[in-house]
Amino acid sequence: MKKLLLPLLLFPLLVSSQKEDSLMVRKIYDEILINGECYENLRSLCKDVGARLSGSPEAEKAVKWGEALLNSYNFDKVWLQEVMVPKWKRGEKEVCTINSISVIALDICALGGSIGTNGTIKAEVIAVNSFEELEALGEQGVKGKIVFFNTPMDQKHIRTFNAYGGCYPYRSKGPSEAAKLGAVATVLRSLSTITDEHPHTGVMRYEEGIPKIPAAAISTKSADELVKQLKTSPSLTLELSMNCETLPDVKSYNVIAEITGSETPDNYIIVGGHLDSWDLGEGAHDDGAGIVHSIEALRTLKAIGYKPKNTIRVVLFMNEENGAKGAKKYAEQAKANNENHIAAIESDRGGFTPRGFSIDGTKEQYQNLLKWSDLLEDYDLEYLVEGFGGVDIAPLKNGKTALIGFVPDSQRYFDLHHSTNDVFEMVHERELKLGAASITTLIYLIDKYGI
Amino acid sequence: MKKLLLPLLLFPLLVSSQKEDSLMVRKIYDEILINGECYENLRSLCKDVGARLSGSPEAEKAVKWGEALLNSYNFDKVWLQEVMVPKWKRGEKEVCTINSISVIALDICALGGSIGTNGTIKAEVIAVNSFEELEALGEQGVKGKIVFFNTPMDQKHIRTFNAYGGCYPYRSKGPSEAAKLGAVATVLRSLSTITDEHPHTGVMRYEEGIPKIPAAAISTKSADELVKQLKTSPSLTLELSMNCETLPDVKSYNVIAEITGSETPDNYIIVGGHLDSWDLGEGAHDDGAGIVHSIEALRTLKAIGYKPKNTIRVVLFMNEENGAKGAKKYAEQAKANNENHIAAIESDRGGFTPRGFSIDGTKEQYQNLLKWSDLLEDYDLEYLVEGFGGVDIAPLKNGKTALIGFVPDSQRYFDLHHSTNDVFEMVHERELKLGAASITTLIYLIDKYGI
Repeated sequence: MKKLLLPLLLFPLLVSSQKEDSLMVRKIYDEILINGECYENLRSLCKDVGARLSGSPEAEKAVKWGEALLNSYNFDKVWLQEVMVPKWKRGEKEVCTINSISVIALDICALGGSIGTNGTIKAEVIAVNSFEELEALGEQGVKGKIVFFNTPMDQKHIRTFNAYGGCYPYRSKGPSEAAKLGAVATVLRSLSTITDEHPHTGVMRYEEGIPKIPAAAISTKSADELVKQLKTSPSLTLELSMNCETLPDVKSYNVIAEITGSETPDNYIIVGGHLDSWDLGEGAHDDGAGIVHSIEALRTLKAIGYKPKNTIRVVLFMNEENGAKGAKKYAEQAKANNENHIAAIESDRGGFTPRGFSIDGTKEQYQNLLKWSDLLEDYDLEYLVEGFGGVDIAPLKNGKTALIGFVPDSQRYFDLHHSTNDVFEMVHERELKLGAASITTLIYLIDKYGI
Repeated sequence: MKKLLLPLLLFPLLVSSQKEDSLMVRKIYDEILINGECYENLRSLCKDVGARLSGSPEAEKAVKWGEALLNSYNFDKVWLQEVMVPKWKRGEKEVCTINSISVIALDICALGGSIGTNGTIKAEVIAVNSFEELEALGEQGVKGKIVFFNTPMDQKHIRTFNAYGGCYPYRSKGPSEAAKLGAVATVLRSLSTITDEHPHTGVMRYEEGIPKIPAAAISTKSADELVKQLKTSPSLTLELSMNCETLPDVKSYNVIAEITGSETPDNYIIVGGHLDSWDLGEGAHDDGAGIVHSIEALRTLKAIGYKPKNTIRVVLFMNEENGAKGAKKYAEQAKANNENHIAAIESDRGGFTPRGFSIDGTKEQYQNLLKWSDLLEDYDLEYLVEGFGGVDIAPLKNGKTALIGFVPDSQRYFDLHHSTNDVFEMVHERELKLGAASITTLIYLIDKYGI
């Protein structure tokens, strides 16, 4: 809003350059809003490939899908970058019941990486709202029991990612914390912003040297039900059955394409999202949106005839969800090849209406981003902050490369994140396209001016 | 983003005041995000009352609903303000068919205010994309025909209200323009941002002295079908049957409540939306959201114990959709009573994620709004512009009262606006609540500092 009033008349060159930028950005938006292919590409990824957990046959199908799509656009180069990824399998549909006066089935799913129950576990359940409460119970209160982490997402946060951040530790390290006190399993209130019957999965990690125990999430409705039942029967038992398992790592790929730079081809600007998804839903917002945003950016630059000075590369990262092996491999190779990455842009916060960008870089890079704020504000991109770029570009951090995360509106994201609700139908065409146009605009500006 | 770096240390009073504001705004958001009642109030308005076109029994039910709800909150005053409103009735479900090789039914609804067809109209249809094309056809090309206004919403606009503005004239004055050339009826491509089977109604107005002809809207899918059929059969006929009619005006009410100011009770800050809706859907975003936003603002100020200096009034306006009689009546009465309105805030652009406010006032008032931008940005309210306030507050314009429109994200609004899709289920709880909190915050700031 608070536009800097530049003494425009003193800078005819600047004015001409601003006009050129203004026209080019308009061209980018027009191309995507009228001829954009990202929405139909997302439909194809969601419906023709579907859920695509790392190491699964569907993830390999996604690799072929990405390679074929990128080839169809005739970019200067398309290739696969080999990477070994974990292979975790959910197995049969999990079952969890409250054994009260009657038997009540809960909506449940195993957390990614969890071991199975090797038959059925039946044990008393004890609810805690924090690690402090868990500690206070001690071994005496926890041993032999199923720990129920019942911390809801804090609705007071304006940006839901902050609420997610507050609950995330219960999912990722809750199982090992409970196991240290002798728990036999954990169930987690799903990390969801709404109350419904869909459990949300997500990665958990066992701490080295601590016994591995099965870890599951239950839907927010089931969590409410369990709380209600515990009020009348504090020593309630749960029965839990899951036969998920981790198999040996398998070979997979990052899928990469680029338009070679016309002036400094050894300087790179990359844009990417992750090709893998959880096995529930269709990975539409997480992160089909980021995949099609990134491909659309490259497609659009080519479609409008823009010849980038630097090489612009799209990277469809494999295995963000449970290992980030693709991200590590990409950064390793970039370093080994001495590739100078000017900037890396990641889209992995959904396909919702754009708000802006967060940059993880130097103060100077942030100031350079702010120089474009007048132009970006015309497209309702007002949120320009210093902050995290993204999981897949994080390994590129070297004090020089600007790591930039695309920031869409966050209100609806955690309603469906990692659940069966994350399907194509939840993505809005204009919102998705505006996201792609925002990202393409930023690539254009960085290519032209550096950052 | 570009925060003004105030020399804070020089202004201890300012700092203390900023801290107080910061705490108060946090309190407003916490109250609404945790204890907010607007979402459940909207559910009740949509499900217990439903669609509520001016002059209908349902609109009268909505008046009682509003009065009872406001009374339940024990505000200082609650009353009804009588106003005569138009009464238009859709009658039986409209029918429109293409008479081609086979008969194809189109998704159709009469436009609000249209006369009926008095039986069935059967005539050749002629498509135009603009008034210029209509003019070029002349009487020779139009006489005795049904004119099909086929202008789609322009997807290139970033804010969909601009696309709506571009097509609106075809709905409002298209029928009379066609009638001037002897057309017997008009059908309009629905003013919608998506392609689906739902026709979107809305008000049209007959020009004085021009023959009145029936006017309808067809769904975007039906419009595409009609275009397709016209390609192969340019002299296609349509059959159209509607028995809508306008009855004599009836008595209705604006519903008003207030918290009396503790220092200057004769100065007013009002907040409102419109209680009437179209007869399709449930009037959830248009404008159930504005109604519950406004009530929530008053509820919240009371709930957190804030004692306003000025009188804060909520106005549930009647008849925004087809006459704005409630708006005119309110402004007349305010003038007759010599009430000094400091500011009027309207919410009538949906219940989506908040972006900011547009202000129709003096330059100084706009500058005063911008002074709060640092605080508002913390709540992701970055869009602060000079622009239209709203239809219901427009008659208050007097060069002194600041007219302010709440601006939520616009991407999804015209997907459902004035159609059967505008139902409670399309409203997102957190987005709705954040809207209410944004508006309450602005009321607090204006009450404290003036504008």
